[in-house]
Amino acid sequence: MKHRLSRRRFIASATVSMIPSAVAIAQPKGISLFTMGTDEQSSESQKLPKPDWKNAGVIDLSNSPHAKLKTVPVRAVVIQPGFWSQRRTTNLVASIPSMHDELLEHGRMDNYLRLKGKLSEPQKGPVYSDSDIYKWTEAVGFQLQIADEPKLRATTDAMIRDVVAVQEPNGYLNTYYNSDRKPLRMRYDTQTTGHELYCIGHLLQGAIAYYRATGDPTLLDAGIRFVDSFLIPDYGPRANQKAIVAGHPEIEMALIELSRTTGDPKYITLAGYILHGDERVPLKPEQIVYMYCGIPFTSRTKLEGHAVRAMYACCGATDYYLETGDPAYWKTLNVLWNDLTAHQLYVNGGVGARAEGEAFGDPYELPNAQAYGESCAAIGNMMWNWRMLAASGDAKFTDVIERALYNGINSGMSLDGRTYCYRNPLAFDPTGESRDGDQVDGKIRNAWYDTTCCPPNLERTFASLSGYFYSTNDDGVFVHLYDNSEMNWHLHDGTALRVQQKTNYPWDGEVKITVSPATPSDFVMYVRIPGWSTKNRVKMNGEEVAGAKPGEYLAIRRRWSKDDTIDLNFDMTTHLLKANPAVTEDRGRVAFQRGPIVFCMEDLDQSEHDGGVNLAGYTVLEDGETTAQFEPHLLDGIMVLTHPATISKTATDTTLYFQSSTPKAPASPTTVRLIPYYAWANRKPAPMQVWIPYKDA
Amino acid sequence: MKHRLSRRRFIASATVSMIPSAVAIAQPKGISLFTMGTDEQSSESQKLPKPDWKNAGVIDLSNSPHAKLKTVPVRAVVIQPGFWSQRRTTNLVASIPSMHDELLEHGRMDNYLRLKGKLSEPQKGPVYSDSDIYKWTEAVGFQLQIADEPKLRATTDAMIRDVVAVQEPNGYLNTYYNSDRKPLRMRYDTQTTGHELYCIGHLLQGAIAYYRATGDPTLLDAGIRFVDSFLIPDYGPRANQKAIVAGHPEIEMALIELSRTTGDPKYITLAGYILHGDERVPLKPEQIVYMYCGIPFTSRTKLEGHAVRAMYACCGATDYYLETGDPAYWKTLNVLWNDLTAHQLYVNGGVGARAEGEAFGDPYELPNAQAYGESCAAIGNMMWNWRMLAASGDAKFTDVIERALYNGINSGMSLDGRTYCYRNPLAFDPTGESRDGDQVDGKIRNAWYDTTCCPPNLERTFASLSGYFYSTNDDGVFVHLYDNSEMNWHLHDGTALRVQQKTNYPWDGEVKITVSPATPSDFVMYVRIPGWSTKNRVKMNGEEVAGAKPGEYLAIRRRWSKDDTIDLNFDMTTHLLKANPAVTEDRGRVAFQRGPIVFCMEDLDQSEHDGGVNLAGYTVLEDGETTAQFEPHLLDGIMVLTHPATISKTATDTTLYFQSSTPKAPASPTTVRLIPYYAWANRKPAPMQVWIPYKDA
Repeated sequence: MKHRLSRRRFIASATVSMIPSAVAIAQPKGISLFTMGTDEQSSESQKLPKPDWKNAGVIDLSNSPHAKLKTVPVRAVVIQPGFWSQRRTTNLVASIPSMHDELLEHGRMDNYLRLKGKLSEPQKGPVYSDSDIYKWTEAVGFQLQIADEPKLRATTDAMIRDVVAVQEPNGYLNTYYNSDRKPLRMRYDTQTTGHELYCIGHLLQGAIAYYRATGDPTLLDAGIRFVDSFLIPDYGPRANQKAIVAGHPEIEMALIELSRTTGDPKYITLAGYILHGDERVPLKPEQIVYMYCGIPFTSRTKLEGHAVRAMYACCGATDYYLETGDPAYWKTLNVLWNDLTAHQLYVNGGVGARAEGEAFGDPYELPNAQAYGESCAAIGNMMWNWRMLAASGDAKFTDVIERALYNGINSGMSLDGRTYCYRNPLAFDPTGESRDGDQVDGKIRNAWYDTTCCPPNLERTFASLSGYFYSTNDDGVFVHLYDNSEMNWHLHDGTALRVQQKTNYPWDGEVKITVSPATPSDFVMYVRIPGWSTKNRVKMNGEEVAGAKPGEYLAIRRRWSKDDTIDLNFDMTTHLLKANPAVTEDRGRVAFQRGPIVFCMEDLDQSEHDGGVNLAGYTVLEDGETTAQFEPHLLDGIMVLTHPATISKTATDTTLYFQSSTPKAPASPTTVRLIPYYAWANRKPAPMQVWIPYKDA
Repeated sequence: MKHRLSRRRFIASATVSMIPSAVAIAQPKGISLFTMGTDEQSSESQKLPKPDWKNAGVIDLSNSPHAKLKTVPVRAVVIQPGFWSQRRTTNLVASIPSMHDELLEHGRMDNYLRLKGKLSEPQKGPVYSDSDIYKWTEAVGFQLQIADEPKLRATTDAMIRDVVAVQEPNGYLNTYYNSDRKPLRMRYDTQTTGHELYCIGHLLQGAIAYYRATGDPTLLDAGIRFVDSFLIPDYGPRANQKAIVAGHPEIEMALIELSRTTGDPKYITLAGYILHGDERVPLKPEQIVYMYCGIPFTSRTKLEGHAVRAMYACCGATDYYLETGDPAYWKTLNVLWNDLTAHQLYVNGGVGARAEGEAFGDPYELPNAQAYGESCAAIGNMMWNWRMLAASGDAKFTDVIERALYNGINSGMSLDGRTYCYRNPLAFDPTGESRDGDQVDGKIRNAWYDTTCCPPNLERTFASLSGYFYSTNDDGVFVHLYDNSEMNWHLHDGTALRVQQKTNYPWDGEVKITVSPATPSDFVMYVRIPGWSTKNRVKMNGEEVAGAKPGEYLAIRRRWSKDDTIDLNFDMTTHLLKANPAVTEDRGRVAFQRGPIVFCMEDLDQSEHDGGVNLAGYTVLEDGETTAQFEPHLLDGIMVLTHPATISKTATDTTLYFQSSTPKAPASPTTVRLIPYYAWANRKPAPMQVWIPYKDA
């Protein structure tokens, strides 16, 4: 296991928490753990940004030797009014504050106060309750990277103080494994279910995002203390150490991000050990499947088990590859990615077919109404593909990111930002039975889940979104996502660069990109041609550019000057998608996709809607022409598709089984109306379907 | 709660176990618990059979006031060489002996020997392990009702002695809740999961079957002792009693059969109390759904939760109705039955869509590959419909019995009788992931399951099968099932009657029934016209009889004399069945049914089979003509269907999603071969499907 370390290096120390920050902390607050090593700053890095807390991206790949693409800071890109702006505002003004209140109401902070002796109540919530606070803190961290929010920051600072106050002298920090549960700490049998490392992983991610926003290392110090003082001395591969199993992968990517943040390679080593698994932990085969850890990651040949665990494991493994370049990891990751896209990916970008075990199913097992598609799993899918993209520069990964982001992730949060989907099924009947506590009174969106992993996960994703728009490499800039926005960053040679986007994407396919380097410079703009865009036109300063291919980055290499423009024109034809015939539930059905947006029929929008029409009666005409019309007042402004269809009102009156020779119920012509999938379930509970029969069956 | 009691009554006593049997025990063995009350034997009952242990049916409805049909003893009907004879022989010579060995090998009897102090090993197997012994004993009991098998009887007698030897003085008998688990006995929290009453229910059913075979009440005495000495004094509705929840319904029908066997109504009262639920047991809503008990049975409005629990609860509730006539029960039972047949019944007669919780799904949630369809649930379905049929005389219940018996139950046991399906899915991929331990190395049939409820359940069902062929009422005889057989029984007026069947059913539709009363008598022969038989011809002594309607009993009322013959000719046209369009996985697909037999495609039988062809490539022609050919050497002799189809060999090479405008893969004409569903998975593991696309999707 080789670590090619960064040239610039932070010197981390577990014992220097009283040393004031030495350099480059523009808004120091609290006590920094870090001193800056300057000995390795070569002349070529003089133009690089100061290696301070401000300039790291969603993940910090600036020194990752196997990252072909480097991240751009979240704060370097301002998303302007357009498709994502309302979601982002809602996230700030509604989601993050209301989730704060929910967390407090459900005792998530009481657990810390109790350990400080301020409360006598028992521990509240499930074993992973601490992680809710940390993931919410991460959302705040990304939000504060965009812009300071003094009140939000003060609130969060106070919560962080309460958290770190209960850290034990040995570094241990977890509110669940205390009192009579203390003997259970980090036992082999509780490592598989106890989520102690999962919680610390989220603490580290939250702490890093908060540190990158504020320079305040308070929470980060606590995380480092847990790892350095509690974990590393006693746990690891050596004979005098106890073995680790992740249980719920998460710690791996957090440790690697900690290494990127501190420059200390020991965290990569630890992550590699956890990714490899330790035979000393006795595990049953079904645990190895379910947890997606415990055996060498590189021995995996397919996605299986708990979907979020598998996705987070893949994130950690890709992070490990980005740092080490281990070819066995890259090979495995590509095998798994091919399994994902050939067999396991829902058309909305979600993953995880089964409610049982919140798990991947067999290949092509992609039920619609019974789809699990946990919001966290879709987010994990996006996070993994983000890392695969960085490792390769291949737009096929961006296509998956876009599919998940606009559909199966975006559906996870209500338009008002106050309720959330835990499951994201592709068909729905509000009279159906609840799965895992969702669908209360037919409502699939709820403000609170006792396992509330998804809401703050959605919040951190939307808060960090601007960090996913661009990457850089030594040749230039990659444009991944399209929306009205302005990036102010620089090329690898240090040349300041502004990139502006003007567009009505994803509702229409025209994007104007204005590229303005501080001084005329030779570099490449890699603009993404989405995989769904069959026909494309690209103009450079008004002149046609050839070579645009769906699912690739078009490289425009030239000497760029201020206000150079790229005009993109993507193909917004609505496509009726079919699924591989092995996907039994989608057979004879089509899904509508226009641009990156997957659509669905919600019963409320159908003219025949009478409060209880079963959607099974509709059949769309395969060769019919789809009309798209923007409706500014419906569901915060959406494109609505209409498509010719037939309706057989008696279709659902038939018996359960009948002879094929039974005369067909008469079908009348009608038109179906489709709304973007992400906008479903924002009115009263109603039947919904993404996959619609296209032949009269 | 009113009990209309039988006129003939056994006087049961918990304290008379040393009283020798008084009357009517032809082959007494051991000590009988019963004395015969003669005071109520009215003159009209003089012609009735002696109310001894020999003359009770699968369930004993002879004195059930609300049973419109009365059962016929298992031993009164001899099944002769034909469709069921091989299965029945296999059951005796292979299944029951091999399961005996498996039970011993897996420590099921060691649990008793341990408590006798003969072994020092710990308890083995799950909490319901005792029930495996009792269900196997019930299979033996039914087998011995057919014919004496001295060796089998000696083996079972010895096992019964070992079982009853560990009964405690207070009547308690359970090998799991001993030693350090003793404090957990019959606590509210363990009643929901502990299966103590489930085990006793199976003990009683096994004991009754064994008693009806042999007259030996040893095991039955033990069951009565448990109920009378342990259960009734301390558990029940009174304030000084502890509350009961069934946890896994089963005890209800066992208690009612115990009442039928002993004549003591207190067991009906206890069953009614359990069916009603006791509010003193604290239950969560999800437990009430899953366990299908704990609230008044009459408050149920749909089938939900664990399928076997729900089916057994319905059995107990129907038994309760048969004894009490409570109209609220009858109303609820019919609501649930309509839910079953409108929304929840697989075409193979199985129930239980979800592996998660082995449970019913939402209405129309009937996935194929993911179907659970536990063998026990299909058996429970048959047992419930048998009781509904007795309560009503309505052939719609017999149609469900036949569908389950010939398909989803018959599939549960391999043709060699040595391996069993726990799940009975309607599509299968041997490379798929195992669900609940099945599908090891692609094999869905296994000789042993740690939860081995299904194998002995199948064995008791096949051993008791002759008891399901006929019923009687005051007007005459009902013929439910067709196979070569001879019944020797009597009319309600005591007239001896022989009914013979000669047929090649279910392979063809001709059945010759010879009716021979001892003396010419006026009565009715109710012959069942199966629901699937669209066109029917019935002849009485060679002359056409009108009025046969699918799904009804045709009443032939006349003065019958020796060797009167009924010739039935059912419509054996192969039907292509479609499912309600709300069943998403079956949309655009058909299932083949010929007579009562549902067919399936097994990949091995297809001409294009190359070891890995995906069945998703086949499309049958809806208007094609099906050919049926009996193949005597294939799978112990089966009808094979062939049907014109097309195959698109590249169908599964497509990507997961593709645009509808993508050119279709070329399809070539071919022919598919179908085998009876029950015979699947008896060769090497191979893909299988029941529902086949009938249009090129």
